[in-house]
Amino acid sequence: VDLNADLGEGFGVWHLGDDTALLDIVTSANVACGFHAGDPTTMRRVCEQAAARGVAVGAQVGYHDLAGFGRRRIDIAADELAADVLYQIGALQGCAQAAGTRVAYVKPHGALYNTAMDDPVQASAVADAIEAYDPSLPLLGLPESALALAADDRGIPYFYEAFADRLYTSAGRLTDRSQPGAVLTDPDAVIAQARSIVLDGRVEASDGSMIKVLASSLCLHGDTPGAVELALAVRAALIGAGIELAPFAP
Amino acid sequence: VDLNADLGEGFGVWHLGDDTALLDIVTSANVACGFHAGDPTTMRRVCEQAAARGVAVGAQVGYHDLAGFGRRRIDIAADELAADVLYQIGALQGCAQAAGTRVAYVKPHGALYNTAMDDPVQASAVADAIEAYDPSLPLLGLPESALALAADDRGIPYFYEAFADRLYTSAGRLTDRSQPGAVLTDPDAVIAQARSIVLDGRVEASDGSMIKVLASSLCLHGDTPGAVELALAVRAALIGAGIELAPFAP
Amino acid sequence: VDLNADLGEGFGVWHLGDDTALLDIVTSANVACGFHAGDPTTMRRVCEQAAARGVAVGAQVGYHDLAGFGRRRIDIAADELAADVLYQIGALQGCAQAAGTRVAYVKPHGALYNTAMDDPVQASAVADAIEAYDPSLPLLGLPESALALAADDRGIPYFYEAFADRLYTSAGRLTDRSQPGAVLTDPDAVIAQARSIVLDGRVEASDGSMIKVLASSLCLHGDTPGAVELALAVRAALIGAGIELAPFAP
Amino acid sequence: VDLNADLGEGFGVWHLGDDTALLDIVTSANVACGFHAGDPTTMRRVCEQAAARGVAVGAQVGYHDLAGFGRRRIDIAADELAADVLYQIGALQGCAQAAGTRVAYVKPHGALYNTAMDDPVQASAVADAIEAYDPSLPLLGLPESALALAADDRGIPYFYEAFADRLYTSAGRLTDRSQPGAVLTDPDAVIAQARSIVLDGRVEASDGSMIKVLASSLCLHGDTPGAVELALAVRAALIGAGIELAPFAP
Repeated sequence: VDLNADLGEGFGVWHLGDDTALLDIVTSANVACGFHAGDPTTMRRVCEQAAARGVAVGAQVGYHDLAGFGRRRIDIAADELAADVLYQIGALQGCAQAAGTRVAYVKPHGALYNTAMDDPVQASAVADAIEAYDPSLPLLGLPESALALAADDRGIPYFYEAFADRLYTSAGRLTDRSQPGAVLTDPDAVIAQARSIVLDGRVEASDGSMIKVLASSLCLHGDTPGAVELALAVRAALIGAGIELAPFAP
Repeated sequence: VDLNADLGEGFGVWHLGDDTALLDIVTSANVACGFHAGDPTTMRRVCEQAAARGVAVGAQVGYHDLAGFGRRRIDIAADELAADVLYQIGALQGCAQAAGTRVAYVKPHGALYNTAMDDPVQASAVADAIEAYDPSLPLLGLPESALALAADDRGIPYFYEAFADRLYTSAGRLTDRSQPGAVLTDPDAVIAQARSIVLDGRVEASDGSMIKVLASSLCLHGDTPGAVELALAVRAALIGAGIELAPFAP
Repeated sequence: VDLNADLGEGFGVWHLGDDTALLDIVTSANVACGFHAGDPTTMRRVCEQAAARGVAVGAQVGYHDLAGFGRRRIDIAADELAADVLYQIGALQGCAQAAGTRVAYVKPHGALYNTAMDDPVQASAVADAIEAYDPSLPLLGLPESALALAADDRGIPYFYEAFADRLYTSAGRLTDRSQPGAVLTDPDAVIAQARSIVLDGRVEASDGSMIKVLASSLCLHGDTPGAVELALAVRAALIGAGIELAPFAP
Repeated sequence: VDLNADLGEGFGVWHLGDDTALLDIVTSANVACGFHAGDPTTMRRVCEQAAARGVAVGAQVGYHDLAGFGRRRIDIAADELAADVLYQIGALQGCAQAAGTRVAYVKPHGALYNTAMDDPVQASAVADAIEAYDPSLPLLGLPESALALAADDRGIPYFYEAFADRLYTSAGRLTDRSQPGAVLTDPDAVIAQARSIVLDGRVEASDGSMIKVLASSLCLHGDTPGAVELALAVRAALIGAGIELAPFAP
C-alpha cells in the first residue's frame, strides 16, 4: 500500500507541518502548488528531498485562495478551474523536473477536494485539465465520487485513498469534521483502522456496521501535535504486518 | 529574422494589448506567466492561439509583483528568484502542453529584464533555473550582458534581440525611457531602423555614430495606441525586403 | 435622487471603465477597495477627484479574489468576512481622509452583493462589520433582502437602489444576466425606466405587470461600450424632468 | 520607557510568534497590516487584545510582498509607496476602531524600515502619507535617519527606538545581521544593554567605545525560540530598576 500526506504547505517565512519528518514516513507526497499554500522555493526543496528518498511527488492542486488555505468553496467557472489546475500541475512539474523527478499524480486539496467528490461540474473541470495535460497522469481521491466518474469517462487512472484517522459513515463517506468523534485521536484506534483497511479492505462505520473500504493509498496527516509520531506508528504497524509500502503511481 | 512581442498580459477581467492581432504579426510570443501579469485562463488561450498559428511560445518570466506589473526592481535572494523562474516556466509549459505546443524559450520581463542584463547575481539565478530545468532551452536578451555571460557559462543557447523603436546609445545600450527621443514614434523611422538592423546589422546611435546591432529577433510592442498598426508595418516592410520571418528558437 | 456607479476598478497598469467621465455624472462613487479590484494609488486618486466634485465616496467591498473580480461566490466564515469588510472600509477611509473626504456609505460588490441579498449569514457578517466600525454608516442595496434585514436589526441606515438598465421580475428582483433581455441596451428604454423609477416609483416587470420600485439611488454602469454616453443621457433626462441629483448619504 | 514588538504577523492558517504572550509584555504593538504579513481577522483580534490590555496599536507598514515577508527592498515609485502606506494605516485603523482603540503610531517594517532610514525618496513617501492622513500621528524609528528628517520637515512627531539585542556600530547604527555577533543572544548581555540604554542613554559599540543611544522605546522580538522568555526578562529587569513602562505615543 501507499502512504500519502500533504507537504510543502508553508508559504514564505511561514511553516506548516514537518516536511522532512513526513518525507521519511510516506511513499507519496502531495505537494502544495502555490495557490492555497506553498511557494516556489519550498516546492523545489520538497521535490529534491522527495527525489532523494524515492517518494513520489503529487500535485496538491487547490483554489486560488491563500488567505483561506483553499478551505473555502469557490464558485469558479469550469474553464477557469481547469486552467488553474493545469497551471499548478505545470508549476510543480517545473520544480520536480529541476529536482530530477516528476509529477506522478494529482490530488485536489481542501474545499476543492470535497467539491470535486460531489459536484460534477468542478470534478469535470479537474479531469479536463488532466486529460488535456496528460491523460495517463493518475488522480487520487475517494471512491464512488464525481471525480472518479469524471476520470473514468476520460480514461484517466483513478486511485482510491482511505483514512486511518477518520470515522466513516455506513455509506462509506467521511463523517463531517464538525461532528464529535469524526477524527480518531487514540493511536491504537488509528492503527487498528489502518490495519483493517489495508489487510481486510473494510472498516467499522459510525453505526457499528462493517463497510468495504478499498484503498491504494492511506492518507496521513502531519500538521497537528503528535501527528508525526502517529504517522510513524501507523507506518511501523503496517510494516510489522508484512505490508510492503510503495508509491501507488507508476 | 524572428519578431517577438509581449502577450497574454491581461489579468482576470483586465485586458492589455491586442493579443489576437499581435499573434498574426509575430513569430514568437513572450507569454506572461502570472507573476507580474497573466492568468492561467489567458495563458492557456494564448498558447492555443499561438499553436494554431505556428507562433513559438516563450516564457515571459518576471518578479512576483502584480501591483507593479514587474516594473519595480526587487532585491530577491538568488535561490528564491531561481525557484520563481522555474515555477513560471513550468506553469506556462503546463498550459502549452495542453495546447499541443511547448515553451520554446525564456525572456525576462520588465525590471527583471533590466536587472538580469547588468546584475550578475540575478542573471545567474535566471540561468541557474534554466540549467536545472533544461539547459537546451534558449534565453532571449541583449548582447554583451550579464545574462548572456551567465548563459554562456552554462551552455544555455542565448539569442540576441534588438529594438526597432528604441534609440540606441553609442555603447549599444537602450537610451533610458525617461530621456526625450528614447522611444521612436515616427513610423518611417521605426521601419527604417528595423530594416537597418535586419539587413545591415547596424543602427544609428544617439550621437549619430553607426553601431553594430546583431539580432536574431526584433522586439515589437502592442500595448500603446497605434502599436499594432506599426508592428504590422514593420512586418510588411521586412517581408517586402525579402526577409523570411520565422521563430528563432528551434 | 442619487446616481451611483462602480469606480476605481482598475489594478496596477490595468484600467477598467472611465473613472473621470463617470465622476462628472454620478453623485455617489462606489470605490473598489483592493480585494477584488482597485489599488491604493487608484483609490487615492479617485477619492481626490470625488472630493473635488462633491461626489460621495462609498466603499465597494468584495471578496478577496482579484483573479475572479469578486464575481465568484466564496464560502467564507462569517467572522473572516466581517474582518475583510472592516479592513476594506478602513483602507478606503485612509485614502479618503488624505483626500479631504470620507467613506460615506458601503455597497457590496459582485458575488458578495448577490450573496448578501439572499444569505442571512453573509449578510449579517457585512452588517456586523459596519456595526462594529460605525453603525451610522449607511448601506446601499436591494429592498426586501437579507442585507436590509441585517441592517435593520442593528439600526444601520439602509438605502434602496434601483437599476434603469435591468429587467425586473414581477417579484421585484433582477432577471438573471444569463436570460435574454435581462440587460436593457436601448437608450430610450433605459431612460424611460429611469424616469419611471424616479418619478413614479414603479417599473414594468418581465411579465408586463407594473411593480413598485422605491429607490434613493439609481445604479449606472460605465464599463461597457457606450455606457458613459448612456449614463450621461439618463442624468440629462432626470435633470430635464426637474429631478434634483444629490448624494443619498448624509 | 516604551517596549514595542512586531505582532500579528501570521497570515491565514500560518502563525508566527506568540502574539498573546507578547501582548502581556509590551506597551506598544506594531501590528502587520496585510501587505507583508497579517490578515484582517488577525489584525482585528490583535487590536481587541491590545485594547483590553491598554497596549498602544501601531501600524507596521511594509512593502506589498507576502512571499518575501517585506524583507526584500522594492524600487517602488514614491507616490505608489505613499498610497500603499495610507492604505495600510487606514485598514488597521478600521480594525482598531471596531476594537475600541485606534492607530497610535506608524513603524515601517523590514526592508522598508531599512530603506526609509537611508533613502530620502522612500522616507519622504512614508512621511507624505502620514502628513496627508494625520500629521499628528507619530513615527517610530532610528535617530539621525532620512525618515527622522522627513518627519521633522513635515512637523510629524518622531520617536526613537533602540535595540537591546543588537550590536551597535560606533556610528550608532545596527551591525548588519550577516556579521557575527550582530545579534546578542546571551540573556545577561541583552538585559545589561537594555538597562544601559534606558538608564544611561548609551551602549557599548562594536569597537568597544561607549556611544549615546537615546530612545523612547525599546524594540523586543518574539519570533525566535526563547524570545518571549528573554523579552519577559528584559521587562522584569527594567521594572526592577524602577523604570515605568508606558506607551510612547500620546
